[in-house]
Amino acid sequence: MTTKADADRLFLGIDVGGTNIKAGVVTGDGVVLHKASVSTEAIEGPDHGVSQMARAARLALQQSDVPPECVEAIGLATPGTMDIPAGMLLDPPNLPGWQNYPVRQKVQAAIGRPTILENDANAAAYGEYWAGSASDAASLVFFTLGTGLGGGIIVDDTIVQGEHSHGSELGHTIIEMDDGRLCKTGQYGTLEAYCSATALIQRFREAMDAGRQSSVTDRMDDVTPLSPLLMAEEAEKGDELSIELILEMARCLGVATTSIVHVIDPTIVLLGGAMTFGRHETRIGRMFLERVRDEFRSRAFPVLAEKISIDYATLGGNAGFIGAAGCARRAANRGQLPG
Amino acid sequence: MTTKADADRLFLGIDVGGTNIKAGVVTGDGVVLHKASVSTEAIEGPDHGVSQMARAARLALQQSDVPPECVEAIGLATPGTMDIPAGMLLDPPNLPGWQNYPVRQKVQAAIGRPTILENDANAAAYGEYWAGSASDAASLVFFTLGTGLGGGIIVDDTIVQGEHSHGSELGHTIIEMDDGRLCKTGQYGTLEAYCSATALIQRFREAMDAGRQSSVTDRMDDVTPLSPLLMAEEAEKGDELSIELILEMARCLGVATTSIVHVIDPTIVLLGGAMTFGRHETRIGRMFLERVRDEFRSRAFPVLAEKISIDYATLGGNAGFIGAAGCARRAANRGQLPG
Repeated sequence: MTTKADADRLFLGIDVGGTNIKAGVVTGDGVVLHKASVSTEAIEGPDHGVSQMARAARLALQQSDVPPECVEAIGLATPGTMDIPAGMLLDPPNLPGWQNYPVRQKVQAAIGRPTILENDANAAAYGEYWAGSASDAASLVFFTLGTGLGGGIIVDDTIVQGEHSHGSELGHTIIEMDDGRLCKTGQYGTLEAYCSATALIQRFREAMDAGRQSSVTDRMDDVTPLSPLLMAEEAEKGDELSIELILEMARCLGVATTSIVHVIDPTIVLLGGAMTFGRHETRIGRMFLERVRDEFRSRAFPVLAEKISIDYATLGGNAGFIGAAGCARRAANRGQLPG
Repeated sequence: MTTKADADRLFLGIDVGGTNIKAGVVTGDGVVLHKASVSTEAIEGPDHGVSQMARAARLALQQSDVPPECVEAIGLATPGTMDIPAGMLLDPPNLPGWQNYPVRQKVQAAIGRPTILENDANAAAYGEYWAGSASDAASLVFFTLGTGLGGGIIVDDTIVQGEHSHGSELGHTIIEMDDGRLCKTGQYGTLEAYCSATALIQRFREAMDAGRQSSVTDRMDDVTPLSPLLMAEEAEKGDELSIELILEMARCLGVATTSIVHVIDPTIVLLGGAMTFGRHETRIGRMFLERVRDEFRSRAFPVLAEKISIDYATLGGNAGFIGAAGCARRAANRGQLPG
């Protein structure tokens, strides 16, 4: 426990992805002093990965002119599967070979400060809740749209982690019971099979096979593969197929949002991650958001349709490490830091 | 706050339905002393309804030989829609004419003890969590199968009430995005359109219209209308159509369970309410449960499929008032009783 003002407290957030590790020094009131990014080099194994995490942390600390001992605690966000209370990675698909690895304890030993572990999507949700576009909300449902679809839910400052560290797996919401599309998890009809970069690319290919036309194909060559970014750019220029597929993805997200909102009844729903099509800055980004909202409003109970707002998140790629730092602060405030 | 042992504390739980009001005196460790039931006579309006609640309470107290002043607090469970923090009924479809009614305050005034309000499905869930078949669980997803489909979710002794008193509306989980069946709420593809007494009867009628045969029709006459009970009885005797329709209902419940479990990741899932087909006591009850489990296991992440159990609830029709009493105890323990 501490009596310091939040502005004078310092936390370190580390967000580990399959490709990059981001670390940032964050004050107790959510201001980022400095951040750093290094390669994960996941293929080199988890011990090397931890040394990369420590390297990113060191860079962020040096730039912030903060000695490690001034950091109250470290929040570590990684992809799952994991056992959060045990601080263990179990079998993370995005970090192949890092099985059954006590990552929390290893990072704590490497940097020398009390460390807590959180799922990366949960941490990003907590970042938006603590210091982002949901900071006035009592509760939040957060979607991360990327290669797959992740999520995080916060209710009254509590992260819905689940009893087996599998809470808030929003990509596994089933939206089509029969004749649903196949997801990479081997399941049919889940949201992730309709609303993810993987799904969008697959549907584009199916449309091509069915003889549809698109200006996206004019942009593709040996060095420029089909990508959601390419589709978003062409959608912005008016490519009908790209617009259609992106809005169909939004419709499916609106359906799942309806189900999840009637479970949680949150203050706000936020959409984050790389697959947000330029957000409010582009026409297709605005169309995407409006399509999600329309689908939700047409399917929800009237009081929820009226009162719950759906919007884009604001912290972008920083949400993960900011949220991880916020989780460390929360654990410190509750006297729940490991020794 | 109290320093009494739970066994020496007394609470009153009142469960208001469209037809009957149940009241029970419950100790602080969840033992029912006596219970009473009276007609709601909802048509007579909310003030008369409150006098009926007070009557049921008085009967239960007299039978228990407990003077009202020995009751620490009252838990009142009613159907929604409602504003839980405000203690208000808003526009409950099952209590027509009881709009915008300050039911919590009226009951508190009528009986003279501090009263808290809770949604009836949430209260039933809390009953199972506190004193029923989930009393060893850290968290619970609870379905009430009846005319409609309701639900309640408890995580770490907290009821997922939602920001607008619409949390845990599990009947509104969408399981079929396109070409879904129509629910009485006017929505398509929601769980309630597949898994409720209303849905079961409707599907039976559709099968009759399509020329299917069933021994249920031999039992129906002017005084014995088509009902889920009749179908369950004939299913138990081997009627193929009844078995098929009941197991299809179970399959749909298994689909929605998968979605909700990946949001909450609870310790246990329980099925309660009148539409549980004799539970473990009958073959069709056991088949129903096994079908829900099979569908869930085939669709869930392996760790959740393995670790989360699905079973019938045990408190039956007492869950509501027991849970309401438990909610009153919880509010007392947290110093959250109204003055």
